[in-house]
Amino acid sequence: MPYELYYWPEIQGRGEFVRLALEEAGVEYVDVCRQPDGKGGGTAAMLRILQDETVARPPFAPPFLKTGDRLIAQTANILAFIGAHHDLAPSDEGGRLRANELQLTIADFLVEIHDTHHPIGSGFYYEDQREEARRRTADFLKQRAPKYLGYFERVLERNPDGKEHLVGAGLSYPDLSLFQIVAGLRYAFPRAMARLEKQHPRIVALHQKVAERPRIAAYLASERRIPFNEFGIFRHYKELDAKR
Amino acid sequence: MPYELYYWPEIQGRGEFVRLALEEAGVEYVDVCRQPDGKGGGTAAMLRILQDETVARPPFAPPFLKTGDRLIAQTANILAFIGAHHDLAPSDEGGRLRANELQLTIADFLVEIHDTHHPIGSGFYYEDQREEARRRTADFLKQRAPKYLGYFERVLERNPDGKEHLVGAGLSYPDLSLFQIVAGLRYAFPRAMARLEKQHPRIVALHQKVAERPRIAAYLASERRIPFNEFGIFRHYKELDAKR
Repeated sequence: MPYELYYWPEIQGRGEFVRLALEEAGVEYVDVCRQPDGKGGGTAAMLRILQDETVARPPFAPPFLKTGDRLIAQTANILAFIGAHHDLAPSDEGGRLRANELQLTIADFLVEIHDTHHPIGSGFYYEDQREEARRRTADFLKQRAPKYLGYFERVLERNPDGKEHLVGAGLSYPDLSLFQIVAGLRYAFPRAMARLEKQHPRIVALHQKVAERPRIAAYLASERRIPFNEFGIFRHYKELDAKR
Repeated sequence: MPYELYYWPEIQGRGEFVRLALEEAGVEYVDVCRQPDGKGGGTAAMLRILQDETVARPPFAPPFLKTGDRLIAQTANILAFIGAHHDLAPSDEGGRLRANELQLTIADFLVEIHDTHHPIGSGFYYEDQREEARRRTADFLKQRAPKYLGYFERVLERNPDGKEHLVGAGLSYPDLSLFQIVAGLRYAFPRAMARLEKQHPRIVALHQKVAERPRIAAYLASERRIPFNEFGIFRHYKELDAKR
């Protein structure tokens, strides 16, 4: 039975990190909410599970993955599961822990990226926190983004098993997630990223290598890849990007 | 050789979730930065590792745990390690994944708790984002805290293996972390929590049970437990708490 992925159908969001891993693993999965309502799809399918009082181990929020009777939630947790079962993570304990550690750091980075446009809270519109967003984004682009990107550049540089990957000698799920971070930052902050990329050549190279992997390339060219937009985590608001 | 924990010595912070697990596990550990400078302690000991260019797999930030030659960073990752090695997590894959999922949800909650007093960024003083903090905290107390607490109450209520624990039939590390969340929220928002607790009796009961465990009780009464203060994640600013 194929995996079932439950996530908002209109955005890449956190679900995209899972989609990339499932695509690279080449496993069968259904992106449930993107199926027609009449065929058990739509957002309703996800809300049914979230609101079902008979679910013994409910998720807090999407994305979650259904495999048999089991629901697995939290992006990094889903990825650890996929990594272990589909050869997208080192198999030794040290490598597995390191992959999880790096993924959690990517998750922290992602929260800060999201909060550039929503510093006061997800419950308010962007338009109602535009000034605060400007202030937070300036700090993000000056301090936080360089700190995270500098870190991942160092991780690649020092990886004793090969500087082309974040952990171990081969591709693992954090590599796919870092690809997505670069893609998203390019979309959201094209001017700032043009500058930042020059200082982080190994990250740029990793992004390129991932983009060229046959399954990822096919996915990116397909309709399964939802375009970036202003409902997701990575949003392009011109006024927030760096000055020319 | 005892574990070495590296974390800021003046605050509970994220390190506290690790301290609680190490204490409950009853394993030997050194809280390195709380040792005297002259004996290899102090914050300098932590910065030395973070800045050491020969470290092959550097952490992004504290807390991190050193065991032998291995450094393990990211709170939830450290806890997964301690849980697996010291019987503080279910041993089956489903239980292990669920414990990690819940811990990551606690981590998300914690970020939102922190951001109540730092919505614009950690790089600015609280005094320079007081107005924004007021706005974000109001939303947090009205929408977000009830959402998270309601979720964990449901998780306890529905746990098929016993309503006294978050996952499985026995104590696991997410239970210890939820204890800490309650302790911290009581410190930071005493008025808001007094109301919220009435609606979440199972969470309150879990907090109490954890507090009474012999090793935790001894720890809380010891000097190893750093008091809450206004440098940590849980801060008490009277103007941010709910009105009387």
